[in-house]
Amino acid sequence: MSTIYSPFVAELKEKMEFEGSFLVKIVQLHMDKNGRPYLNMILMDKTGEIEARVWDNAQKLGDEVRAQDLIRVAGKVNLYQGRRQVVVEAAAKMPEGSVPLDRFVPATAYDVNRLYSDLHALFSTLADPFARALCLKTIEEPDVKRRILRAPAAKSVHHAYAGGLLEHTLSVCRILDGLAKHYVAYYGPAVSRDLLLLGGLFHDIGKIYELNFERGTEYSKEGQLIGHHVLGCELVDRVAREIPDFPDELRIHAKHLILAHHGRLEYGSPKVPHTVEALIVHYVDDLDSKVNTILDFIGEDKQAGEFTAVNRLFERPFLKPKAAPNFQGPSPGVDS
Amino acid sequence: MSTIYSPFVAELKEKMEFEGSFLVKIVQLHMDKNGRPYLNMILMDKTGEIEARVWDNAQKLGDEVRAQDLIRVAGKVNLYQGRRQVVVEAAAKMPEGSVPLDRFVPATAYDVNRLYSDLHALFSTLADPFARALCLKTIEEPDVKRRILRAPAAKSVHHAYAGGLLEHTLSVCRILDGLAKHYVAYYGPAVSRDLLLLGGLFHDIGKIYELNFERGTEYSKEGQLIGHHVLGCELVDRVAREIPDFPDELRIHAKHLILAHHGRLEYGSPKVPHTVEALIVHYVDDLDSKVNTILDFIGEDKQAGEFTAVNRLFERPFLKPKAAPNFQGPSPGVDS
Amino acid sequence: MSTIYSPFVAELKEKMEFEGSFLVKIVQLHMDKNGRPYLNMILMDKTGEIEARVWDNAQKLGDEVRAQDLIRVAGKVNLYQGRRQVVVEAAAKMPEGSVPLDRFVPATAYDVNRLYSDLHALFSTLADPFARALCLKTIEEPDVKRRILRAPAAKSVHHAYAGGLLEHTLSVCRILDGLAKHYVAYYGPAVSRDLLLLGGLFHDIGKIYELNFERGTEYSKEGQLIGHHVLGCELVDRVAREIPDFPDELRIHAKHLILAHHGRLEYGSPKVPHTVEALIVHYVDDLDSKVNTILDFIGEDKQAGEFTAVNRLFERPFLKPKAAPNFQGPSPGVDS
Amino acid sequence: MSTIYSPFVAELKEKMEFEGSFLVKIVQLHMDKNGRPYLNMILMDKTGEIEARVWDNAQKLGDEVRAQDLIRVAGKVNLYQGRRQVVVEAAAKMPEGSVPLDRFVPATAYDVNRLYSDLHALFSTLADPFARALCLKTIEEPDVKRRILRAPAAKSVHHAYAGGLLEHTLSVCRILDGLAKHYVAYYGPAVSRDLLLLGGLFHDIGKIYELNFERGTEYSKEGQLIGHHVLGCELVDRVAREIPDFPDELRIHAKHLILAHHGRLEYGSPKVPHTVEALIVHYVDDLDSKVNTILDFIGEDKQAGEFTAVNRLFERPFLKPKAAPNFQGPSPGVDS
Amino acid sequence: MSTIYSPFVAELKEKMEFEGSFLVKIVQLHMDKNGRPYLNMILMDKTGEIEARVWDNAQKLGDEVRAQDLIRVAGKVNLYQGRRQVVVEAAAKMPEGSVPLDRFVPATAYDVNRLYSDLHALFSTLADPFARALCLKTIEEPDVKRRILRAPAAKSVHHAYAGGLLEHTLSVCRILDGLAKHYVAYYGPAVSRDLLLLGGLFHDIGKIYELNFERGTEYSKEGQLIGHHVLGCELVDRVAREIPDFPDELRIHAKHLILAHHGRLEYGSPKVPHTVEALIVHYVDDLDSKVNTILDFIGEDKQAGEFTAVNRLFERPFLKPKAAPNFQGPSPGVDS
Amino acid sequence: MSTIYSPFVAELKEKMEFEGSFLVKIVQLHMDKNGRPYLNMILMDKTGEIEARVWDNAQKLGDEVRAQDLIRVAGKVNLYQGRRQVVVEAAAKMPEGSVPLDRFVPATAYDVNRLYSDLHALFSTLADPFARALCLKTIEEPDVKRRILRAPAAKSVHHAYAGGLLEHTLSVCRILDGLAKHYVAYYGPAVSRDLLLLGGLFHDIGKIYELNFERGTEYSKEGQLIGHHVLGCELVDRVAREIPDFPDELRIHAKHLILAHHGRLEYGSPKVPHTVEALIVHYVDDLDSKVNTILDFIGEDKQAGEFTAVNRLFERPFLKPKAAPNFQGPSPGVDS
Repeated sequence: MSTIYSPFVAELKEKMEFEGSFLVKIVQLHMDKNGRPYLNMILMDKTGEIEARVWDNAQKLGDEVRAQDLIRVAGKVNLYQGRRQVVVEAAAKMPEGSVPLDRFVPATAYDVNRLYSDLHALFSTLADPFARALCLKTIEEPDVKRRILRAPAAKSVHHAYAGGLLEHTLSVCRILDGLAKHYVAYYGPAVSRDLLLLGGLFHDIGKIYELNFERGTEYSKEGQLIGHHVLGCELVDRVAREIPDFPDELRIHAKHLILAHHGRLEYGSPKVPHTVEALIVHYVDDLDSKVNTILDFIGEDKQAGEFTAVNRLFERPFLKPKAAPNFQGPSPGVDS
Repeated sequence: MSTIYSPFVAELKEKMEFEGSFLVKIVQLHMDKNGRPYLNMILMDKTGEIEARVWDNAQKLGDEVRAQDLIRVAGKVNLYQGRRQVVVEAAAKMPEGSVPLDRFVPATAYDVNRLYSDLHALFSTLADPFARALCLKTIEEPDVKRRILRAPAAKSVHHAYAGGLLEHTLSVCRILDGLAKHYVAYYGPAVSRDLLLLGGLFHDIGKIYELNFERGTEYSKEGQLIGHHVLGCELVDRVAREIPDFPDELRIHAKHLILAHHGRLEYGSPKVPHTVEALIVHYVDDLDSKVNTILDFIGEDKQAGEFTAVNRLFERPFLKPKAAPNFQGPSPGVDS
Repeated sequence: MSTIYSPFVAELKEKMEFEGSFLVKIVQLHMDKNGRPYLNMILMDKTGEIEARVWDNAQKLGDEVRAQDLIRVAGKVNLYQGRRQVVVEAAAKMPEGSVPLDRFVPATAYDVNRLYSDLHALFSTLADPFARALCLKTIEEPDVKRRILRAPAAKSVHHAYAGGLLEHTLSVCRILDGLAKHYVAYYGPAVSRDLLLLGGLFHDIGKIYELNFERGTEYSKEGQLIGHHVLGCELVDRVAREIPDFPDELRIHAKHLILAHHGRLEYGSPKVPHTVEALIVHYVDDLDSKVNTILDFIGEDKQAGEFTAVNRLFERPFLKPKAAPNFQGPSPGVDS
Repeated sequence: MSTIYSPFVAELKEKMEFEGSFLVKIVQLHMDKNGRPYLNMILMDKTGEIEARVWDNAQKLGDEVRAQDLIRVAGKVNLYQGRRQVVVEAAAKMPEGSVPLDRFVPATAYDVNRLYSDLHALFSTLADPFARALCLKTIEEPDVKRRILRAPAAKSVHHAYAGGLLEHTLSVCRILDGLAKHYVAYYGPAVSRDLLLLGGLFHDIGKIYELNFERGTEYSKEGQLIGHHVLGCELVDRVAREIPDFPDELRIHAKHLILAHHGRLEYGSPKVPHTVEALIVHYVDDLDSKVNTILDFIGEDKQAGEFTAVNRLFERPFLKPKAAPNFQGPSPGVDS
Repeated sequence: MSTIYSPFVAELKEKMEFEGSFLVKIVQLHMDKNGRPYLNMILMDKTGEIEARVWDNAQKLGDEVRAQDLIRVAGKVNLYQGRRQVVVEAAAKMPEGSVPLDRFVPATAYDVNRLYSDLHALFSTLADPFARALCLKTIEEPDVKRRILRAPAAKSVHHAYAGGLLEHTLSVCRILDGLAKHYVAYYGPAVSRDLLLLGGLFHDIGKIYELNFERGTEYSKEGQLIGHHVLGCELVDRVAREIPDFPDELRIHAKHLILAHHGRLEYGSPKVPHTVEALIVHYVDDLDSKVNTILDFIGEDKQAGEFTAVNRLFERPFLKPKAAPNFQGPSPGVDS
Repeated sequence: MSTIYSPFVAELKEKMEFEGSFLVKIVQLHMDKNGRPYLNMILMDKTGEIEARVWDNAQKLGDEVRAQDLIRVAGKVNLYQGRRQVVVEAAAKMPEGSVPLDRFVPATAYDVNRLYSDLHALFSTLADPFARALCLKTIEEPDVKRRILRAPAAKSVHHAYAGGLLEHTLSVCRILDGLAKHYVAYYGPAVSRDLLLLGGLFHDIGKIYELNFERGTEYSKEGQLIGHHVLGCELVDRVAREIPDFPDELRIHAKHLILAHHGRLEYGSPKVPHTVEALIVHYVDDLDSKVNTILDFIGEDKQAGEFTAVNRLFERPFLKPKAAPNFQGPSPGVDS
């Protein structure tokens, strides 16, 4: 089979014959009424998922292929009970690295390197040299940078795609920057821009360790047992201790901003906000993730009429806006 | 007694002898162990409250003076159980109108006419002519304008002073304006600036009828039994019906933005947000009122040490910022 | 095909061949393993629902027929996986109006005109002329009367059938009438029969606008975004303003009775009851709807043994009464 | 001192000199600044409570008098910090039984013997002979009858006065009787009048053992550790076992009606209602106790204006009705 | 068919032909596309459950066999959609008593007679003769003993197998015995070993009446409507009344320990713990049932990786221990 | 004044004249009616608190003495409004260190060095060498040891006295040791004694940094903003990293045991228990602290009758045990 061209999952139409490359999400061996074995698979790339069924050499292929492997498939698309299903005619496991992984995993619509450099530029403007050093040193660490360029912001709720964490972090920081200007005009230096932006950068940073996200997104062992609040604290604590004369006061503030960012104990924060900055960071994080969740949901809704289906997280339908949400371009908001 | 000069309550120091004008908040007649009657009063002006005790002609003065009257007092300040207390030497009820009421009621630090004109200017920028007409027509109604220039935003929590509703409304609208720019850059016209600003203007407008606020702030009968969500809806509904060809769709949106602005049923909203704009308005309203509440609380806290006393609403102490919050100037944020 | 006679869904038995008229609830086009298209439909009338499958001319019929259309079907009843299923031999869309809609939608067992006249008679007995005028004028408005004769009391919980709102309203009013006699005997005029009956009539009246109920029951756009509390308020407010000299006090009372009838904020009331009458109306509304829900559920339960299956709303099974609930007759309770 | 005449507490006015008999609610020995001992007491009768202070022979009287003793007092009424206070000139403990206790304990306004005979008459109408026997035999037991004629319905919330349990029980039963007629007309024998009335009689009967109520009302040891749900069950279980051939089914029903009458686990019911009758009994019990609580509260409210003070249980103020609630007459509702 | 030998459900492998005896859990008659009737059954024994399908004589067998019957089956094991399924070739209902029931119902891994005698021995060590008599007399009653040897501790959560109640009760009592030693060393006789062990024995004893458990486990009518708290109280109350001079104090304590053992009202306890012993019994009951639930769940989990699937009761996955839990031996802990 | 002898606060009786040393808890300057200044103080030592009033040289003493200073006082005990009050005749601030602080702060009844060595001995028995090393190395760190010998377990709830943390930790570890034996007998090595004891030692260890406890107990800044969950994690993480080859797996387990020990998010744990050991540690910590709280409360209750006053934390009264709790001896449970 050729490995040169492949259609995307979203492009597969009924009755189409094709050949292409996919990530195996699930693979199971079954037997039909007559005792003949067949494979059921779910194949995915960044545009969606599709079922596939293999009859020929099912047993042998089933021994070779595991979830999260890459696979090359030739087949035809049928409609079965209203859903598309690939009837596989030939299939073979692909060698690792033969196709770049970012073909298979959904990703942010924005250029992650641009998002990163925008974020870096924003933190270069912090007034306090220690706060500035803490932020820049952290995101410049090669392992942190490598992870932050790929991490999603969540397993399945908001910004749940490669680069989603970076997209969310930058969006939150920009909103906080606007609020800093706004509230300093009202209340003076009782509201600190530096602390707001520290909170914006660090509140979710522990997610680079909480989630395994190379192929699909799963909680890591540390993620499940320790969680991104504490993992983020540990990272910030370590980097701060590597900066000479780093003030205790600022280190405690930074950790508090992380620990309190879910706002309430029952949402997993071991501390409620005890500073006005921690409260604001909580609100903006919550708002930005909810806006993304809702607009994603509206964008994917297929229900007829003026309302979407009931969203399970929000336990309600949403009224659809006149214009569907679109998610594209390099790094929005940069020049505004 | 002279009625020309008066010190403010905040200026009264121990052992000081003075003469001045105050609003009577509470007045009660008591009898001492020897059967001698005396009056206990709480006097207030916009800078604070102070206790006062009258021994001479207590019975007679007690017959004349009622809560919310204005009174002229000559006396001396003592310290009693750690608190200041005025021993009254002479007192007389003042005729209505002899002193402007705004001396006695705490008010926003900002110029309400400037706040109003800034708000008016902001709504002149709405894109949809019906949305623009609805907003401007509403705040230009003489009775609405008169009330909005004086109404507090709440009885006792946030922005609880004359002009507080206007201050809060403008602050919310400015933040929403910033968020509109931000999210339109990300998601396009699926997020509507017009709806966000409609929600900013109208979410609390029912409070001009919910509260009686000429002297002190109390719930009106309609406020107690119907509430500002529905009172606001009724106002908007009426004005919209007076605009020819006003679209149903927009009228429903405006009412939904009001009804849903507390975000959850248990906070008094009869509807949860079903649009992304209603959700954003809820967050910004909530955030802006909490920021004001906390900074007010910090500004008034008297506890020694790095933390304030426990705030009853938030059930926690707050870490004091390095710089105390200050609240002054005309209309902040205008030129930024 | 003849259009004269039709069996009801409840009458269709296994192996029966028949011809009849139904409302199409759901229609979907599928393809079988061999690529042959077929239609899956759910047909309904007021006695129940049944699945149907069309093989001949499936594509063509699928292009013609939409959900909520009326359809004429000839076919045979099979048993498939324990459920009845119609194998359709011939089918055609029916012209609008060829069969009265009330054949297809479940309805109250009682005569709605009798329920209406009983309700009208009850409100003629109100003592206060303004209260009496408000009630009678409202239900005599032609659009209100037309809607109230058909509206269900809910989408899927209690009294969820045509005329259910009227049946529930009358039942609530009669119970309130009894409680008025009872409590006036105990506490005198501190309990007002007029207010209780006002609350009985108006508490759910907003549902005539909240729900679209001509064929099936769905939330209207105003229903989803504004809700029957506020829609009811607006109706009462408008009618009251059309009655000369209508007292403010009574108008506020009527609106409070509507707004508070869910009893708690978390159940969607923007105000909790602040009068004893509002509290009583809440209890009786809640009780009457729960009694109807439970007895309906018991009447339809098919589980063997002394207990029903677990009811999802109540999260519990119910003990079945010795006698099954029956729902019939003209307007019960009239002469008792 | 004479023991013939005594004013009631409610009749004591400032500066009045009097002699009278009271129940001692609290008694405490203190010492003034000069080391002179004095007694502080709270005296009560069924009309209210008043503070009293004894200077002469305070030590000796303090040794003699205990809480819940009867005392004869001569003294004068002063006003102290806005409250009435008796300055005692002479005082002596009274022998037990010298004055009937019902002078000192607040009681129902109705004739308890009439309430009892009305209740008895109502239960004579039950259709099922076992249900009838169970009810009549229980309330005819001399100890039960003696207790039920005096028991309050609660320690401090609703019907918290001698005879209150009987008053509440009869009121609940009458409402249930009305609902039985109503719902049988709608749903037939699926709703059982006998079970409703059984629930009305027995739901709170355990309170005759849960509370000690001869002087003041306190929880008994069994009341505190076992509670009126289970104590009521045990009484009904015992009496039912003494009736030959009493059916198990009915015994279980009766106990379920008692155990489920608080409606939810978190309100102390170990079982939620699993029959429609248990649900109705819960609603009527809850409604009747809340109506009594609110009207009592309104009747005693002293706040100026249209609203009462905030009620702590309901966490809200109530709008006062035009006519104050009155509580009097023999047994209301009998002939209606 | 022979009735001599039978494989266990857990031993049935794909393609195996066998003959054996099973308990029928569910039986349903269906019809295939061609109108041919067939039976779907779920067969069980103590090692698990398996589906079975009967084609020959399906109608006749369907008339004979009911859920909870014993059945003799000859057939072959197929794999259908990844699950084992028996294709039945011949089947016949078995006479009652032909095979001991304990073959079919899952049971504790421990010897119930040994558990019973250990429990008996433990209660022989109580210090107070009345407490000792109450415990021993209760568990020696033939009907109680017979039931306690077979009862599960719950319908579906913890220790949900024959003998589970006894296993749980003994485990709780042993832990309480250890805690009694521990806390008496700290706090002296303010903590009573006798009360702790009374609570350990009696807290769940009502379950012998709450559940029907001969074949499968269902709530009894008394269980559903009255519950094991009150049923346990009634048993203890009755036995205590049969012991001459049994002290009231101890009887109330025993009943309180039962009623309060769920710790909170919302968990079904009509009383919260008012003694330190009742609190400790609640904690140990809760802990022991949760430990059993979790380890059972881990033992049965089939998910790959370090974590189990999400447990529905706990709403979380568990980290698997290095060593899988094993449940075997006579009565553990006896000689330690 | 002599500094040699001092009575304890608990020994001060009415009319006693004395001289002694105390810790100043609160000090305030007031003025009497005649303008004469006086000091109000609350003095404390480990046996309790007493009010004191200073008239002579009040101003001067007020300038010298601050809260938490030591003071030497000569005076006399009066009874004022039923409470003891010291009238101070002479007073002087004492030099730091002139009296050991443990005279002034309430402390555990047990010998803290014995508690420490018992704890050390227990951890020497851990099976896994890394687990053993982690525990011993941590408690042997001089700063940790110094703090753990003095820290209370809480600010005001359970074990709220010097050494209370150590007392609680040892009690929890002993109970866990018993449960380890118990459950290993039932379930084998699926339950790990090492992990249980790790959890016992470390669950509250962060409190040595969360609280400032040299004189009185207050939250430290890190305690208020970061909390003992995360502070404990950081300590364990640091010590583990100092042990060569310390396994990641064990480090994660130890941190999870700390983070999950409050059992639920809403109680401040950022993670719920995901291992059976974490669940058991949570239960035992919770149980041990509640037992201590209740018995302390019962020991100090002064209410007449069989029940205590209502405990605010538990919102209920407790039945008093026949024998009052006593708290004494060296380290209980050692030899049992």
